[in-house]
Amino acid sequence: MAETSSTYEKALQEFRELDRKICRYNEAASLLNWDMRTGAPRKGLDGRSEVIGMLASEAFLLATSPRTGELLEQLEEPGTEGRLSEIDRKLVSETRKTYDRSVKIPPKLYEEYVVLASQSESAWEEARANNDYAAFQGYLDRIIGYTNQFIDLWGPKETRYDTLLDDYEPGMTVAELDGIFNSLRGELVPLASAIAESSNKPDRDFLQGHFDKEKQKEFSRYMLEQLGFDFEAGRIDESMHPFQTTINLQDVRITTRYLPEDVTSALFGTIHEAGHAMYEQNVTPELAGTSLCRGTSMGIHESQSRFWENTIGRSRPFWQRYYGDLQSRFPEQLKVSAEQFYRSQNTVQPSLIRIEADELTYNLHIIIRYEIEKMIFNGGAKAADLPAIWNEKYREYLGLTPPTDADGVLQDVHWSAGLFGYFPSYSLGNMYAAQMADTMERQLPNMWELVARGELASIREWLTQNVHRHGKLLTPKEIILGATGKPLDSSYLVKYLKDKYTDIYKL
Amino acid sequence: MAETSSTYEKALQEFRELDRKICRYNEAASLLNWDMRTGAPRKGLDGRSEVIGMLASEAFLLATSPRTGELLEQLEEPGTEGRLSEIDRKLVSETRKTYDRSVKIPPKLYEEYVVLASQSESAWEEARANNDYAAFQGYLDRIIGYTNQFIDLWGPKETRYDTLLDDYEPGMTVAELDGIFNSLRGELVPLASAIAESSNKPDRDFLQGHFDKEKQKEFSRYMLEQLGFDFEAGRIDESMHPFQTTINLQDVRITTRYLPEDVTSALFGTIHEAGHAMYEQNVTPELAGTSLCRGTSMGIHESQSRFWENTIGRSRPFWQRYYGDLQSRFPEQLKVSAEQFYRSQNTVQPSLIRIEADELTYNLHIIIRYEIEKMIFNGGAKAADLPAIWNEKYREYLGLTPPTDADGVLQDVHWSAGLFGYFPSYSLGNMYAAQMADTMERQLPNMWELVARGELASIREWLTQNVHRHGKLLTPKEIILGATGKPLDSSYLVKYLKDKYTDIYKL
Repeated sequence: MAETSSTYEKALQEFRELDRKICRYNEAASLLNWDMRTGAPRKGLDGRSEVIGMLASEAFLLATSPRTGELLEQLEEPGTEGRLSEIDRKLVSETRKTYDRSVKIPPKLYEEYVVLASQSESAWEEARANNDYAAFQGYLDRIIGYTNQFIDLWGPKETRYDTLLDDYEPGMTVAELDGIFNSLRGELVPLASAIAESSNKPDRDFLQGHFDKEKQKEFSRYMLEQLGFDFEAGRIDESMHPFQTTINLQDVRITTRYLPEDVTSALFGTIHEAGHAMYEQNVTPELAGTSLCRGTSMGIHESQSRFWENTIGRSRPFWQRYYGDLQSRFPEQLKVSAEQFYRSQNTVQPSLIRIEADELTYNLHIIIRYEIEKMIFNGGAKAADLPAIWNEKYREYLGLTPPTDADGVLQDVHWSAGLFGYFPSYSLGNMYAAQMADTMERQLPNMWELVARGELASIREWLTQNVHRHGKLLTPKEIILGATGKPLDSSYLVKYLKDKYTDIYKL
Repeated sequence: MAETSSTYEKALQEFRELDRKICRYNEAASLLNWDMRTGAPRKGLDGRSEVIGMLASEAFLLATSPRTGELLEQLEEPGTEGRLSEIDRKLVSETRKTYDRSVKIPPKLYEEYVVLASQSESAWEEARANNDYAAFQGYLDRIIGYTNQFIDLWGPKETRYDTLLDDYEPGMTVAELDGIFNSLRGELVPLASAIAESSNKPDRDFLQGHFDKEKQKEFSRYMLEQLGFDFEAGRIDESMHPFQTTINLQDVRITTRYLPEDVTSALFGTIHEAGHAMYEQNVTPELAGTSLCRGTSMGIHESQSRFWENTIGRSRPFWQRYYGDLQSRFPEQLKVSAEQFYRSQNTVQPSLIRIEADELTYNLHIIIRYEIEKMIFNGGAKAADLPAIWNEKYREYLGLTPPTDADGVLQDVHWSAGLFGYFPSYSLGNMYAAQMADTMERQLPNMWELVARGELASIREWLTQNVHRHGKLLTPKEIILGATGKPLDSSYLVKYLKDKYTDIYKL
């Protein structure tokens, strides 16, 4: 018995070390990637991807090695559950999940796929530039083909598309999401139409001008301090495309991009990335150095960035508090009132391009992609069918028809890279955020007064308590249930959008 | 025959891949180290050393694996020399050297040593702060003991200390260095005394003042451009202790430290590090991605940094050209003439601390350390003997007696970290630089006119042609012989120093 106990303890020790080593590889790869996208000298980038690739591949080899399989079996032996702490138990089950998913794919097949995905991304880039869907179509069909092979190898869930969805939002199903998205679409399509017909449109003309970059930078830093971003555990830099990356629990970095002609682009970008970053900075230190020390899913992650960017950052009380601070830095350019500024940041306008969409119509862009992904994997739609389907759905939900495929089906990189099942996360984030805000309003009755005073600490602490600290210890479903007492429900987002835009557009 | 050929080719291919993989690990480790010392958020540094340590250890495991031993044997098989390119041949012989050196040390012994060295460095830091040599003495004896064990395992060369020397300056011997250093010391001790007695001392008082950091930064960047540092293949940042690090051939980074009260500290620091950096930036691209893509030795590396910092950067023509540029940035503080500024940057003053020493007496600091290291490894001196030996040599060569051990034998980190044989590189650098400058003056007869016009390209190109491009393909001895037609000779440095300081101090 003592012998067995010691064998078990040894296996657990080795397993934890293995997980720590994987985390160390990931820390190195993340830093190299961050450097590549921020300040690395141009000529030195040749070969940098190979270095990152090598580190990622070493981590992958560890995670999928036969030894990992043996350790998992030892630690999962029936009757041993009680010997593992909550953290170790979760670590074992998460490692098992990755292990099973990976070992089911023959290495040769996976290699072929990686090469294809890389070629396909390049082909997409060119096809979009040339507005030439035909040149990309073959790649897309092959990417879909491989993904279908993977679904077969992993084993389809309720539907084939469920298998993909679960990878980004564990526990989410087509059955659940159909209900949520159908109801959301049913509410948002008429709301967007009503807004489009309103004659009370916010003015945005005054936003034009030249905004000194150094002053923008300084305001972004000020904003981060106000939100509670910990500069001793993070930093902000510039990059072409803003992103957040986690080096480790106490080294969480964000980037932004300052446009001289647009003072709000970097500002809301910074707030968005800070939402992601504060999630990662506030995971409990107990999880430090383990692979559980991360946000639990794409959807919950987006809820944090969108909560700060939209729910708080595009609210009237927020600008009652902060407009003066912004105006004092740009007195020549910003002569309007706080209310006018607030309205200008909340215009709704159906458009063709997802990444430029407002917080309301954004969800319709996502629903279109979700419905098309289902048609591909559950309905057998081919690449050749997609442009027509795409254009028809844009006409139906947004009242617009893309003049070219470049403005339509070719606009996103995701499918070219094989990322199917990812898009729903963005709208899930909006819905989670609205549902959390609803609970928060009841638990912090003076919430909006606090915002109007710039006292954001108790809001951030609510999020840390209910979301951040858990890292990957809880599933998305456990998070939303624990935080709000209810499973995900789209009605909170609908109510939030209706209330806000009825007021702004005087519907 | 075809079979054998293909086996050989396969081994060569595998060997090159192995070397490339080692380089990739090193690239990652270097970047993590750079980040740790420049901009990483404070709280995130916990555990960063472990990540770097893991990467270094993976590289070490590869370099010393049994498979590497097998490949080396295959590639070294008698009669196969002609089948390897010059680069591959050198790669094999360098890998062999590292391999032999490493596999001779039992892993357990090496681990003990690494732990001890780390403790010893901490103990040294504390001992220096408390001026308590006795607290460090035991560590130093143990570090010396391990080093002696390593010498036995590696196999002593002509003398035991030769084994250590060769690790930093391949091919250098005690016999050669004794001759060189004895003659150098014989010339420099009286020269330093004569200078000390001169009544024509340069004025440095005018250097006091406050120098805006942003302007200093801007001037450092301007200086780097003038020298020919390639900003598309490098960058400059700030750190507590200035350093140069190579991420890869086209990503060579330097740091500096701006002191608001001293305009020359960051300036000469930047020029020094740029000398190191331009060496690494200008290795031939044929060596890119191999472990030969580095400077060939510590001594040759220091020759490049010191050539730019002292030979060029502290020359009269250089300040004839650039003083105006500096003055225009600090007109309030710098009211003296170019000549006065030039003189102020060339004061000679015997002092106790090596890192604050001028370019003349610096060599005496090094000779003292060299002589003591020989006494330890060839003469059996113990840690307990060192303070007395140290103080006696400082009195004899520099005319000074350290008031405390903190200002004496405890001042350098090197011995606490087991770096024996490293110090001579600094003076070797000075001597190589002077000897190269002598050849350069004859091959570029208008060299100093070019400097006075700020046309530094042909000087840099001379260095690239004769030094930089070869990377580790040539040994230090081959470099100095190839560049100057003669083996290393201290008389060039003596002549340079005599000429320069006879003029400045009117001796």
